[in-house]
Amino acid sequence: MASVTVYGPPMSTAVCRVLACLFEKEVDFKLARVDMAKGEHKSPDYLKLQPFGQVPAFQDELTTIFESRAICRYICDKYAERGNKTLMGNKEGGFVARAAIEQWLEAEGQSFNPPSSALVFQLAFAPLMGLKQDPAAVEQNEAKLAKVLDVYDKRLGESRYLAGDEFSLADLSHLPNSHILVNKTEKGQLLTSRKNVGRWWEEVSARPSWKKVVEMQRALPA
Amino acid sequence: MASVTVYGPPMSTAVCRVLACLFEKEVDFKLARVDMAKGEHKSPDYLKLQPFGQVPAFQDELTTIFESRAICRYICDKYAERGNKTLMGNKEGGFVARAAIEQWLEAEGQSFNPPSSALVFQLAFAPLMGLKQDPAAVEQNEAKLAKVLDVYDKRLGESRYLAGDEFSLADLSHLPNSHILVNKTEKGQLLTSRKNVGRWWEEVSARPSWKKVVEMQRALPA
Repeated sequence: MASVTVYGPPMSTAVCRVLACLFEKEVDFKLARVDMAKGEHKSPDYLKLQPFGQVPAFQDELTTIFESRAICRYICDKYAERGNKTLMGNKEGGFVARAAIEQWLEAEGQSFNPPSSALVFQLAFAPLMGLKQDPAAVEQNEAKLAKVLDVYDKRLGESRYLAGDEFSLADLSHLPNSHILVNKTEKGQLLTSRKNVGRWWEEVSARPSWKKVVEMQRALPA
Repeated sequence: MASVTVYGPPMSTAVCRVLACLFEKEVDFKLARVDMAKGEHKSPDYLKLQPFGQVPAFQDELTTIFESRAICRYICDKYAERGNKTLMGNKEGGFVARAAIEQWLEAEGQSFNPPSSALVFQLAFAPLMGLKQDPAAVEQNEAKLAKVLDVYDKRLGESRYLAGDEFSLADLSHLPNSHILVNKTEKGQLLTSRKNVGRWWEEVSARPSWKKVVEMQRALPA
C-alpha cells in the first residue's frame, strides 16, 4: 500500500507539480480528494496539514509537508535511489550540481510563476469560474512573462535543459503552468514561438511522467 | 583571501538575505559593487553571472549561482561544518528536518515575499526614487500580508521558530523585508502587534548576523 498521500485536485497546478515529481521518481501514492467548492481546504483538519488552506498537502507515513516545491525536494531526497536519479542532481555532482538546479527552480518560483500564474488564472480559470477577465492584468503579465522567456530562450540555446544536460526538477516545475498556457489559452505562442523554449517545451511535455499527469486531469477534472 | 564574492548593494533585500546567511555560517566574503544607477546590472559581463540582470550574483571559486534563496542553500550545503550548523537542518535530522525548513522557506518565497516586497517598494523605495505611491497597491498588499501573518502567528504560538526549536534559513529569509517594514515604514505593527510574530521578530532581528548586515547597510548605503 502506498505510504504517500497527496491532498488536492489534479486541476491545481501546484498539485500537478507534485504528481509529476512522484511519477518521475516512480513513487506510488494515493490522491485524496479535497472538495474546495465545499470549503474542505479551510476545515480545521485540513489546516493541520496545510496551515494556509491551500493545495496540495502531502503526507508520507508520519511526515506532513506543504508547499509544492518543498514537497518535490523532499521526494527527491527521500527517494533518491528510485526512478529518475538525477532529478535533483546526484552524489557525484554534489552541492554544485544541486545549486545549478536550485537556481532555476527558484527562477521558476520567483520569475516565471508570478506572471504565468496570473495569465493562467485570467485566461483559463476565471472563465470557468464565471469571473470577468482583467485585460490590463493580462497585458501586464504577458509583457513580464515575455521578458522572462527571453532569458530562458538564451539559456536554452546554450543548454539542453535549464540546469544542464539532464532533465531536472527545475524543468519539471515549469510544466503545470506551461501546459495550461499552451493547451488552454491563446497565449501558448509565448513559449512555442521562441526557438529554444519551443524545442524544450516539446521535449519536456512529452515525458511519460507528464503524460500521466495530463491523463489524471482528464480522469478527475474536479 | 575570501573565495566568495557577493555582487550587489547591501540596500537590496535579496543581497541582505545572502549576507545574513554568510554571517551565520561564518564564511568570509567580499562584496563587489554593482552600480545599478549606471546600469551595470544589465552589462554583458554581469549578465553572465546573473542572466536576469538582478542582484545579487554570487561566485565561490569557479561556481556562480543566482537567486538569493538558491545561493543560501548552496552556502548551507558547502559550508555545512562551519558557523551555525543547523541553519538548514543537520545530518541527524536528515531530509525530514530539511523538509520542515524548506516548507517555511517556500512559504516565505511564495506567500510572505510578494505582499511584503510590494509594501517595501511602495512605502520605502518609491519615495527614495521620487516615484508616486499607489495607495490601492498598499491597501491590497497590506490585507494579503495580514492574512499570511495570521497563519504565522498561530505557528509561532506552537513553535519557537518557524521550522521548530532552532533558528533556520526559513526564519533568516524573512529578515530583509521585515526589517524595512518595521524600521522604515509605518506598517511595522503588521509584525509587532501580533503576539507571537512580535516575539519572534524581537528574537530573530537581535541575532549578531543580522546586526552585521544592518551595519553594512549603514556603511554602504548605495
